[in-house]
Amino acid sequence: MPLVLCFNPGSNSLKFDLIETTANQPRASAGKRLLTGDIDNVGKDTTLEITRGDQPLHSEPLPAGDFDAMTTASLDALDKLDLPKPDLAGVRVVHGGSDFNAAVGIDDEVIRKIEARAELAPLHNPKSVKVIRALQQHGSALPLACTFDTAFHHTLPEVAWRYAIDYDVANRHGIRKYGFHGLSHRYQLEQFCSLSNTAIQQANIVTSHLESGSSVCAIREGRSVETSMGFTPLEGLMMGTRSGSIDPAILPYLMQHENLSSQDALQFLEKKSGLLAISGQSLDTRILRKKTDERSLLAMAMYAYRVRATMGAYLAVLGDAQAIVFGGGIGENTPEVRGPILEGLRGWGVDVDPARNTNVMAGDTLLSSPASKLAVWVIHADEGLQLAHECTQALQ
Amino acid sequence: MPLVLCFNPGSNSLKFDLIETTANQPRASAGKRLLTGDIDNVGKDTTLEITRGDQPLHSEPLPAGDFDAMTTASLDALDKLDLPKPDLAGVRVVHGGSDFNAAVGIDDEVIRKIEARAELAPLHNPKSVKVIRALQQHGSALPLACTFDTAFHHTLPEVAWRYAIDYDVANRHGIRKYGFHGLSHRYQLEQFCSLSNTAIQQANIVTSHLESGSSVCAIREGRSVETSMGFTPLEGLMMGTRSGSIDPAILPYLMQHENLSSQDALQFLEKKSGLLAISGQSLDTRILRKKTDERSLLAMAMYAYRVRATMGAYLAVLGDAQAIVFGGGIGENTPEVRGPILEGLRGWGVDVDPARNTNVMAGDTLLSSPASKLAVWVIHADEGLQLAHECTQALQ
Repeated sequence: MPLVLCFNPGSNSLKFDLIETTANQPRASAGKRLLTGDIDNVGKDTTLEITRGDQPLHSEPLPAGDFDAMTTASLDALDKLDLPKPDLAGVRVVHGGSDFNAAVGIDDEVIRKIEARAELAPLHNPKSVKVIRALQQHGSALPLACTFDTAFHHTLPEVAWRYAIDYDVANRHGIRKYGFHGLSHRYQLEQFCSLSNTAIQQANIVTSHLESGSSVCAIREGRSVETSMGFTPLEGLMMGTRSGSIDPAILPYLMQHENLSSQDALQFLEKKSGLLAISGQSLDTRILRKKTDERSLLAMAMYAYRVRATMGAYLAVLGDAQAIVFGGGIGENTPEVRGPILEGLRGWGVDVDPARNTNVMAGDTLLSSPASKLAVWVIHADEGLQLAHECTQALQ
Repeated sequence: MPLVLCFNPGSNSLKFDLIETTANQPRASAGKRLLTGDIDNVGKDTTLEITRGDQPLHSEPLPAGDFDAMTTASLDALDKLDLPKPDLAGVRVVHGGSDFNAAVGIDDEVIRKIEARAELAPLHNPKSVKVIRALQQHGSALPLACTFDTAFHHTLPEVAWRYAIDYDVANRHGIRKYGFHGLSHRYQLEQFCSLSNTAIQQANIVTSHLESGSSVCAIREGRSVETSMGFTPLEGLMMGTRSGSIDPAILPYLMQHENLSSQDALQFLEKKSGLLAISGQSLDTRILRKKTDERSLLAMAMYAYRVRATMGAYLAVLGDAQAIVFGGGIGENTPEVRGPILEGLRGWGVDVDPARNTNVMAGDTLLSSPASKLAVWVIHADEGLQLAHECTQALQ
């Protein structure tokens, strides 16, 4: 029963899970989460909070430090608790570029490649490297593996990953669609197959990871063939603070008329757009869904509208499909978002009782009626379990 | 029987048609084209060619001049030919902003508004104004009207026209989806309704204008509710030399790594991308469809793939639809493009005999079988007839 300590560095937070997997478990959902750790506001004086289920287990103030110091502090805190020792550690890496198509054991060459991709994910990859270095230097000396958010999408065909821009310039700079949220889309795929008794190689489905970062994925015969995030996680759907896809001519127009540098304009689209910009209040649909003012309603409607259109697009990419899956916090908990999407897919033979949509809040549930030509699932995508599962496999 | 002289200024060409309409004709296709004029390479020493059907009628060398001089030369040449005199003139204007929702008779206020929109269509609107001024100053003193490519899309709901960027910045600068190719989409709508005996108010269809500039439009109850071009004609589909939609983060990346200004980067996406960039040979599908090299095949496949996904998206926007329509030179004449699109829409109940798709080359034709849940039409979209029709209506 391998115990996996999984680190997930975010923009300014570090989370970890201790997860029990079995060496030959068929899928991530077979794993069991023993505890969770959280450090918010990395870089400032902060607190490490460890919980088991809903129970607080340990709380410890930490002085300001970078992701390596936070990792070391987490390992030291775990050492002091009366817990079984982990057998291995896993680290989430956002951008694997074209170099990685699966989780791998970590060596110097892997670290070098992750660092080489830092330019494409400047907010994420360097943090993962700091976590890895701290794990390597710690006395616990755990075997290490890492996963890549891009890896699941390495099967995209060229017609999907290539942008219609200069062929040589694109090749020289690696400007292509990479796709992200691979852990979540793969989890949903494998869980769908388990729940519906479908062989992975026969799964033709559309999955969705709908949270403050959002993406949709088209899966044909168990492989990702299209996804809405692209060269970076800015492309595609409207998100919490991200615009998603817009007319590319808007960026130069903004630079000129708002007197912004290209980096300022990019920040404008990444940090000051999305649900936050339209509602003027919050990036969080849990808050917005309770509001009744015009702009909050518009923000929710715009969000759902873009998922609806993208799911329709990906059903056309697949040509034929068995199911769509709603995953991520918004997908699982927001009937107001699912409703208009299901309405849009009537033409595909989607049949869902509106009352059933309204009542389902989270969990792995079949929303659609037996008569529905296209099955509609809600699946609680657990990226921590997927990380543990893939890292266990990588080190077997 | 009004005779309408219609001017269509392009990037560096001026075309005109003399079209006979009737005062109360039900739709544009009832009009009849008497002759066509063409001036290419405006700004250089050039030639005016006037043809009737396939027959050359008049050819005249012209010294280099701007669009106003070309318009005057065209009017003078027509005066010299033994032809019935036009009753009115119409001018195509690309960008009407939010000011115009239909064709209008031209007065000073209209010209002022067209000029005010020049910044949003710097390659087009100023040329239309030059044509209008030359028409006003010419001795023929024809009543004048103009149409707007944006007008048909004034019915877009906010959920479609608003980008998920800062609310106030967008409002201040008029950054929103306007949509283009309105003449073509409206022509296809009205012609579809005529051919299928459908009331305009009951038409729920997806139309497409596929040429070197390409767009798709979702029409609900006879009104445009979504379209793929946006703030500018760069957004949406892959085109002859335009990238269409890409990750917005690519533009700043290109600026930095290819040392481009924002305007250079925009030119890169508008003039050096699309079918031309991928094939490395041509922007013209009439040439590319005969090639068998890898990059030409990729270019054609990428083009079709993006239309396929967008049509799927717009069917989901509509929820329920009667038909899709292929229009424009590529849509009418390229079975290689239509084939993969129809394949993708099987899930919507599209049934088209592949042999029938292969054999139909242009003209108004129902491609789909009687059993097809979604009808598939090829309609020869004639923007000149639509221009004449709308201008006749505007001056009635």
